[in-house]
Amino acid sequence: MSNHVYKTIELTGSSTESIEDAIQRAVGKAAGTVRNLRWFEVTDTRGHIENGRVAHWQVTLKIGFTLDD
Amino acid sequence: MSNHVYKTIELTGSSTESIEDAIQRAVGKAAGTVRNLRWFEVTDTRGHIENGRVAHWQVTLKIGFTLDD
Amino acid sequence: MSNHVYKTIELTGSSTESIEDAIQRAVGKAAGTVRNLRWFEVTDTRGHIENGRVAHWQVTLKIGFTLDD
Amino acid sequence: MSNHVYKTIELTGSSTESIEDAIQRAVGKAAGTVRNLRWFEVTDTRGHIENGRVAHWQVTLKIGFTLDD
Amino acid sequence: MSNHVYKTIELTGSSTESIEDAIQRAVGKAAGTVRNLRWFEVTDTRGHIENGRVAHWQVTLKIGFTLDD
Amino acid sequence: MSNHVYKTIELTGSSTESIEDAIQRAVGKAAGTVRNLRWFEVTDTRGHIENGRVAHWQVTLKIGFTLDD
Amino acid sequence: MSNHVYKTIELTGSSTESIEDAIQRAVGKAAGTVRNLRWFEVTDTRGHIENGRVAHWQVTLKIGFTLDD
Amino acid sequence: MSNHVYKTIELTGSSTESIEDAIQRAVGKAAGTVRNLRWFEVTDTRGHIENGRVAHWQVTLKIGFTLDD
Amino acid sequence: MSNHVYKTIELTGSSTESIEDAIQRAVGKAAGTVRNLRWFEVTDTRGHIENGRVAHWQVTLKIGFTLDD
Amino acid sequence: MSNHVYKTIELTGSSTESIEDAIQRAVGKAAGTVRNLRWFEVTDTRGHIENGRVAHWQVTLKIGFTLDD
Amino acid sequence: MSNHVYKTIELTGSSTESIEDAIQRAVGKAAGTVRNLRWFEVTDTRGHIENGRVAHWQVTLKIGFTLDD
Amino acid sequence: MSNHVYKTIELTGSSTESIEDAIQRAVGKAAGTVRNLRWFEVTDTRGHIENGRVAHWQVTLKIGFTLDD
Repeated sequence: MSNHVYKTIELTGSSTESIEDAIQRAVGKAAGTVRNLRWFEVTDTRGHIENGRVAHWQVTLKIGFTLDD
Repeated sequence: MSNHVYKTIELTGSSTESIEDAIQRAVGKAAGTVRNLRWFEVTDTRGHIENGRVAHWQVTLKIGFTLDD
Repeated sequence: MSNHVYKTIELTGSSTESIEDAIQRAVGKAAGTVRNLRWFEVTDTRGHIENGRVAHWQVTLKIGFTLDD
Repeated sequence: MSNHVYKTIELTGSSTESIEDAIQRAVGKAAGTVRNLRWFEVTDTRGHIENGRVAHWQVTLKIGFTLDD
Repeated sequence: MSNHVYKTIELTGSSTESIEDAIQRAVGKAAGTVRNLRWFEVTDTRGHIENGRVAHWQVTLKIGFTLDD
Repeated sequence: MSNHVYKTIELTGSSTESIEDAIQRAVGKAAGTVRNLRWFEVTDTRGHIENGRVAHWQVTLKIGFTLDD
Repeated sequence: MSNHVYKTIELTGSSTESIEDAIQRAVGKAAGTVRNLRWFEVTDTRGHIENGRVAHWQVTLKIGFTLDD
Repeated sequence: MSNHVYKTIELTGSSTESIEDAIQRAVGKAAGTVRNLRWFEVTDTRGHIENGRVAHWQVTLKIGFTLDD
Repeated sequence: MSNHVYKTIELTGSSTESIEDAIQRAVGKAAGTVRNLRWFEVTDTRGHIENGRVAHWQVTLKIGFTLDD
Repeated sequence: MSNHVYKTIELTGSSTESIEDAIQRAVGKAAGTVRNLRWFEVTDTRGHIENGRVAHWQVTLKIGFTLDD
Repeated sequence: MSNHVYKTIELTGSSTESIEDAIQRAVGKAAGTVRNLRWFEVTDTRGHIENGRVAHWQVTLKIGFTLDD
Repeated sequence: MSNHVYKTIELTGSSTESIEDAIQRAVGKAAGTVRNLRWFEVTDTRGHIENGRVAHWQVTLKIGFTLDD
């Protein structure tokens, strides 16, 4: 929380399990290429319906990280 | 995703279990009368409190479906 | 639902478990000092990321209760 | 407030009298074809002007009702 | 509703009587200087409190009118 | 309007009569415990429907007051 | 604009041609089952991308119509 | 983009042709009375339906211009 | 705060100095042609970047004033 | 950022100096009665105009703090 | 729509021709550097005015694409 | 303002000094890696509180730049 500059990116994770799992998958994917992830904020919760049931949970996140010096 | 026309309706599902279960109940109810359900989007997440605990999760969804030709 | 007056307060609950657990913790905390809690509405779902995983779920709620006569 | 599923429809009532009367007319119209109306929420308050006076109050509502089992 | 161009202005009417009266006063004031007023839309409903009572209702409107040819 | 600090609280008043009466009841309730109420702003207008008629008007307000020195 | 009650439904039209054509297709579909359509309002403009080009324009509308007496 | 002050007005253009034409008509009308128009932003896209077809496109714009020194 | 009617206009002030200075310039410009200015509300804070530095602060305001009787 | 529960209150600070000073005054006032203040978020920036100049900056904040265990 | 993770970027396309052309130019530009573009959503429609006519249409899009595994 | 395509990124700058300084730090950081920065828009103004005073100003910006040909 010092004089850092943070960047925010927007990802959508999807999961057949739960809202939390869709978020974890998006965060995990981001962690594969970006260091210093700090927080996320949910901006949209959607899903795909097949045969009258939720087939995939799709959660869109803003994810913030510290820019390296 | 061709030249179909889609209609959106708004339902609120409730559950004593979880947010996901409230959504599944709303989708399942819609599936009882409407064919070709495709997607949903959460517009509101609320709940009812009894004795200092969440008694019901109440989730409002927009649910989209293809209009039959 | 008669001529009562309701007050709304805004709390953020956090949990290492799930979105639902973060909400239950905020409601439980409110129940420790306020009587007659009636409903909540989620206004923000965020979280803290550590080591490329969600470490805490942080959910902000408006919580409504009846003002005592 | 148990495990019901609710549906929301959007109507606009109009009245030469008042905002409340425009709302009552929309609710009354809905009651003619839908059972189990429970609540409404105002989403827009407009009106038509003639001769420098409000001629009609037009109020748009979301109206919620329980889906029959 | 033909090829006219409409202009919208924003006024706030106030009244000690009611929300409808505050709106009528704003519309009436506009009618004193602008011809062809057609519609209004409420964008904000506020008020001033004195001695624990609403002293003035203050309603902000967008008011639309046809531009003269 | 000098160097005061103001606090805002959120209340919902309800009434069987009118929108204005629901607001007056919320303001009156606040006046019973808080001094120096100054203004309100409506954030939500809802109601409860019974037998196809509006049974209660429920209006949510932000109410502002000066903090005592 | 007299004492009618209006209902609003939400449709999404799609077209390979243009935004206007997607809207016309949604309005035309609605006209096949609902009488007295009066107006529409665009709430979302999206599209599907294939091979680096917009393949379908998808426009979501609120469409209003007079309820029959 | 120097120390100018800009003013924004809100107009609605209508056209039987297209969304772009409705915007051009509103801009053209503004140009008849205001100098130094610089930009516009669409705030609402609506239309009037007759005989199951869009009869008029109605587009509301904020239009910005430099205030003369 | 009596039975006055207020009008709101939207201006954008710009400054090379600060956000506050951009606001003062817009208010000062309005004061050159309109009497009885009462309040402003910031609706947008933007700026122009040159050579990797903020070159102009651009702040958009709603400015309210009493209409003369 | 562990399993704490946070509460948010809404205050408006005012200052004749600057936006930052209005915020500091609101935060300082809150610190006089609440422990463990953590963050703020600006929700509205307004001001009072006298003699064609900004006389007071009025900034509304949400201020968050940890609830004591 | 399986367990993919999607990323969203925000671009503004401009065109002297039409809204659709401005969108196609933004999508085409994105396609030059990003694979697997799937959808877009319009978030802002603006334009530049010269000589009392729209000189450029400027449309801001969110564009979504699948992250490669 | 010709047929360029612009990209927008979201950064948060922080400063112990002022809102303007937090913005300059975010813009300066972006300028270290991106050419042709053109404008910014503030989307959130927050801060961190320590010992009853604002310790850091944190301002979130959308920053736009021209994509190289």
